[in-house]
Amino acid sequence: MPPGTTRIIPLGGLGEVGKNMTVVECDEGLVVIDAGLAFPRDEHLGVDLLLPEFTYLREREDDIRAVILTHGHEDHVGALPYLLRELAIPQVWATRLTLGLVKSKLDEHGLLRAAELIEAEPEEGAVEIGPFRVEFVRMAHSIPDAVAVVLATPGGRIVHTGDYKIDHTPVDGFRTDVGRLAEIGNRGVDLLLGDSTNAERPGVTASERSVGEAFRQIIPMLEGRVLIASFASNVHRMQQAIDVALETGRKVAVIGRSLRKNINIARNLGYMDAPEDVFVKPGDLEELDPDETMILCTGSQGEPLSALVRIAYGDHPNVKVQEGDTVIISAKPVPGNELKVHDTINRLAKAGAEVLHQEIAPVHVSGHGNSEELRMILGLLRPRCVMPVHGEYRMLAAHATLARDAGVPARQIVLAENGSVVELSGGGAEIVDHVQAGVAFVDGLEIGDIKDVALRDRRHLAEDGVLIVVTTIGSQDGREITAPEVIARGFPDPEAVLDEARGEAERVLRQCLAEDIRELKLLQEHLHDALGQLVYARTRRRPMILPVVLEI
Amino acid sequence: MPPGTTRIIPLGGLGEVGKNMTVVECDEGLVVIDAGLAFPRDEHLGVDLLLPEFTYLREREDDIRAVILTHGHEDHVGALPYLLRELAIPQVWATRLTLGLVKSKLDEHGLLRAAELIEAEPEEGAVEIGPFRVEFVRMAHSIPDAVAVVLATPGGRIVHTGDYKIDHTPVDGFRTDVGRLAEIGNRGVDLLLGDSTNAERPGVTASERSVGEAFRQIIPMLEGRVLIASFASNVHRMQQAIDVALETGRKVAVIGRSLRKNINIARNLGYMDAPEDVFVKPGDLEELDPDETMILCTGSQGEPLSALVRIAYGDHPNVKVQEGDTVIISAKPVPGNELKVHDTINRLAKAGAEVLHQEIAPVHVSGHGNSEELRMILGLLRPRCVMPVHGEYRMLAAHATLARDAGVPARQIVLAENGSVVELSGGGAEIVDHVQAGVAFVDGLEIGDIKDVALRDRRHLAEDGVLIVVTTIGSQDGREITAPEVIARGFPDPEAVLDEARGEAERVLRQCLAEDIRELKLLQEHLHDALGQLVYARTRRRPMILPVVLEI
Repeated sequence: MPPGTTRIIPLGGLGEVGKNMTVVECDEGLVVIDAGLAFPRDEHLGVDLLLPEFTYLREREDDIRAVILTHGHEDHVGALPYLLRELAIPQVWATRLTLGLVKSKLDEHGLLRAAELIEAEPEEGAVEIGPFRVEFVRMAHSIPDAVAVVLATPGGRIVHTGDYKIDHTPVDGFRTDVGRLAEIGNRGVDLLLGDSTNAERPGVTASERSVGEAFRQIIPMLEGRVLIASFASNVHRMQQAIDVALETGRKVAVIGRSLRKNINIARNLGYMDAPEDVFVKPGDLEELDPDETMILCTGSQGEPLSALVRIAYGDHPNVKVQEGDTVIISAKPVPGNELKVHDTINRLAKAGAEVLHQEIAPVHVSGHGNSEELRMILGLLRPRCVMPVHGEYRMLAAHATLARDAGVPARQIVLAENGSVVELSGGGAEIVDHVQAGVAFVDGLEIGDIKDVALRDRRHLAEDGVLIVVTTIGSQDGREITAPEVIARGFPDPEAVLDEARGEAERVLRQCLAEDIRELKLLQEHLHDALGQLVYARTRRRPMILPVVLEI
Repeated sequence: MPPGTTRIIPLGGLGEVGKNMTVVECDEGLVVIDAGLAFPRDEHLGVDLLLPEFTYLREREDDIRAVILTHGHEDHVGALPYLLRELAIPQVWATRLTLGLVKSKLDEHGLLRAAELIEAEPEEGAVEIGPFRVEFVRMAHSIPDAVAVVLATPGGRIVHTGDYKIDHTPVDGFRTDVGRLAEIGNRGVDLLLGDSTNAERPGVTASERSVGEAFRQIIPMLEGRVLIASFASNVHRMQQAIDVALETGRKVAVIGRSLRKNINIARNLGYMDAPEDVFVKPGDLEELDPDETMILCTGSQGEPLSALVRIAYGDHPNVKVQEGDTVIISAKPVPGNELKVHDTINRLAKAGAEVLHQEIAPVHVSGHGNSEELRMILGLLRPRCVMPVHGEYRMLAAHATLARDAGVPARQIVLAENGSVVELSGGGAEIVDHVQAGVAFVDGLEIGDIKDVALRDRRHLAEDGVLIVVTTIGSQDGREITAPEVIARGFPDPEAVLDEARGEAERVLRQCLAEDIRELKLLQEHLHDALGQLVYARTRRRPMILPVVLEI
C-alpha cells in the first residue's frame, strides 16, 4: 500500500442486514470496526449463527491492532468471541455499556483475558488506536452508549456512523451529538461510512420517547396483567416501561435470561434507574393481583423457546395469559420472522389477551434514522466521499441517491460490497481490489466450516426426502445378489413406489452384472439413475437417491 | 337436524388466511360457499398446495347440491378442481368473470363437464340453489365481479360477505352495493359471516383508483423501461396501468403465463378495455426504445420461477433491466414471502433499476376493508348474530370486538374454528358440535395424503441431515459380518465422525452377536441408539440415523 493511502475493507454488513464488520488499514496496521453476527434465514437449514468470514484477518493477524465496537447489539459485537478465540487481538475499544455487555459475553466464552478491554470516552478527545488517531461521537440508537468513530488516517479523515438515529429527545438525554458532528464537518471529512438501514424511508423516525408516551396512555387504563416484549438490549424501552409501572403501582417481573442479564448490567453501570422494590420474582407473581403486575419478557420475534412464546402456548411455569390481559409487542418483526410473530399473536389472542403490536398501535419505533436524518448527517459532515454501509443493496442504493442529492459527485460515491477493497487517498476513494469475504456458519459445535454442500443436501432432503437402496453382490463370482432393500424417508405414501423400486433395482443390478459391470461405483450410478427416473415418473418428486452396494 | 334449523360448518379459512370453504346445510341438503386453496409455508417442506380436508363432504356426498363461489381468487376457487374430481357436485354458481376463470382452470384439469356451471347474476332477484333461496350482492374487491351471498334458510337469513372493501370509486364503477345491503338489513339478517382480514386495521382502505392516480403521477416522468408486477388476478390494477401506457405512448408487453391468461379472459368477457394495438409481444420489445415500453409481469411475491424474479436475476430471454429503468411492485408481500420479495428488490436495484414498492410509494392498496368498513357493513345489515370468517384468530377476534361495539350481544357472536358446527335457529346461533376439518396436501402427483410423518421426517432431515449405516450378517452361523458402510448427507464436515461411527457400528454388531442377538430389528435398534449417542456427543447434532442390516 502506498504511503498516504488508507484501505477500507467491509467484511460484512454490505448487501445484507447483520454481521457488520469493517477493516480500516494503512501500511502500519489495521483496526476492525465492529464484529457482528447475523441470524440464519430459513434457507440456512439447521445453522445456528452466521459470522463474517475471517480469512482476510487471518492472513493479516500480525497487523491487527484493535477491534473498535460502535454499540452493543449482536449484529455489531456477536462475532467478537469467535474472533478473539481464533486471532490474537491486542485491544478491544468500546463505550462503557457496550464493554459491560461484551465482558459478560466474553466471560461466558472463557475469553475475558483474550484482549485488553479499553473504555472509549466520547466526551474526551482523540486517542491513539493502532496507527490512527480516533475520536468517538455520541449517537442515539435503540441501545444506550452508541457512538460514531472518527479516524484520522494517512489517506484522510474517515467517519463511521455506526447505527444511529437523530433523536432530539432520547430517554437518557444523550442526543446524537450534532454540534460535535458539525465541528468535525468543519474540520473536513474525506470519507463517510454511513448507516443505510432506513435510507429508503421518507421523513424522520419518531423519538424513542414516543413509545414511552404510548405506554403512558395505554397502560393506566388496563385492568389485567400487562406483558411487554421487546429486544433484550433495548434498555430505554425497558426503562420507560418500568417508569409507567412505578406510576401505576405495578410490580415488574423480568422473564427471559438475556433480558435479566441486560437489565442487571444496565442497572449496575447506571444506565437504568429502577428501585429494587419495583421488581418481583416471576415465581411470586401469583401472589399479586393481575392489575398489580407488569411482565417484561423476551420473545418479540416469536423465537421458539423464548418467554413470550412459551407464555403464548400455555407452557410457562409462572405466567398464564387470560381474558383481560394485554400483551404489548414493542418491536417489529425482523424480515423472515413475520409468521412466527403472527403465530404468537394468534395464540395470545386465543388465550383471551388483547395484543397490541406495531401494526396497530404506536408501541415501537426504529433505532435507525430515516432519509431526512441521513440527509442531516450528510449536511453536517459534508464528506468528500460517501460509502453507504449497513444494509441490503436497495438500502445502500437509496443512501447513494441521498448523497447525490446532497451534492456529492457520483464518482465520489462508493457502492461497495463485502470484500471490496476501497482505497482512500488524496485522489478520492475508489474500489481497487476484492478479497474473500463470505460467510462462516456456526452449526452445533462446528464453527465456520459447514460446507455449502451440506446445506445443499439438507435443502434437497427437506424438499423431497431420501430414498436409500441397499444391496450386496457376491465377491466370488460377482453374480449372486441379495434382494435389494429400499428405504424412504420424508417421502409421501411410498409403499407402491417402493415395491416397484425394489424390482427395478434388482433388474438393473442383474442387467449390469450380465453385462459384466461390477465396479461398485458404476453399479451405484446405474441404480441411482434408474431409480431416480422411476420415482420421478411415478411421483413427480426427486428425492435424494442413495444406492449402497456391498461386496461380500 | 331439527326442522327450522340450519347448520353452518366452516371447513377452511378460520384461524388462517386462505383455503376458504364453508358448508351451509339444512335437512334437505347442503351448499358449499367457496372452495379455496392455501399456499404452503416454510414448515410445509416441499408441499405444493394446501386444500381443506374433504372428509365431511365425502360423508355427505349425496346431500351436496352446489358450490357457490364469491369471486375468482385462488383462496376461494383453487380447490374446486380437486373437489370436482373427487365428489359428484351437480352445480357450480359464480358470476361471469369468476366463471370464466374457473372454466379455464377446469379445462386444464379435464373437468369442464364435471358440474353444471351456472352464472350468478347480482342484478337479478333470488334463485333456488338446492334447498335455499339465494341472492347475490355486488361487493368491490381486488378482482372484478365479487359478490356477497344471501341465503334464505330454514334457520334464518344468512349473509356471507365474501371478500370485500367498500370502494366508493372502483375502477369498473361497480361499487359495493350498499343500497341493496341496507334493504337486506331492513328485511332482517339472522347471521352475518363477515370477512375479517383487515379487522385489526383502523380507518378505511384507500380506493383501488388511488393506485391508478399514483401510476399517473409517477410514470409520465420516467424515461426508461417501466415494469409493473402485481397479482395476476388484479384486472383493475392492470387496466389502470394500461390506461397510463396509452396516455404516455408506451406499448405493453405481458409476461407470465397466469397474467396473460387472465388478461385474455378479462378482455374477452369485457372486464378490461384495451385496444389490441397497445400490446406488443415480449420478443418484439427490443425493437422499441425503453421509454416506449411498459412491461406487466407476474412475480410480485418473489416466486422463484416467476417473470419478475427471472428478470431480476438476468435470466429472462426478452427483458433485461438496466440503469434508468423503474420497477413498480404493485402488491404487498403475503406474510412469509417478505424475504423473497426483498431479495428480488435487491437484485433489481443492483441491476440499476429504481424499485418502487408499497413500503415507500402508494403503489398498492388492499382489497379488504378495514375496521370502519366492517362497522359500516354491521350497521347496514344489523345482523342478529355475527360469525367472523376469513382470517387468523387475531383478525376474527378483532372483528368480534367490532361486532360488540356495534351492539351485538356477546352471546350472539360466534368465534368458530374450522370444523365447528354452528347451528342457526329461532334461538340464535351457537356451536353445537365439531367435525373433522384439517388440511390436505398436494405434493407432487399425490393429492391429499402426504402423511404428517413425511413432513416430520423432512423437517428432521432439513435440520440435521441423515446418517446411514449398512452392514450384513451371515445367515449361516450369523457371526460373520462385513465392515459397516457409513454414509452421511446434509451433515457438516463428517469425515472424522464417520470413521469413528464405522468402528462403533462394528463393535456394537459384534457385541450383539456375541450376546446372541440376531433379530434384524433389534440389531438395527442397537445400532441406531449407539450411533445416535456417538454423533450427538461429537457434534451436538441429531441426524436421522438409518441402520440397514442385511442377512445373507
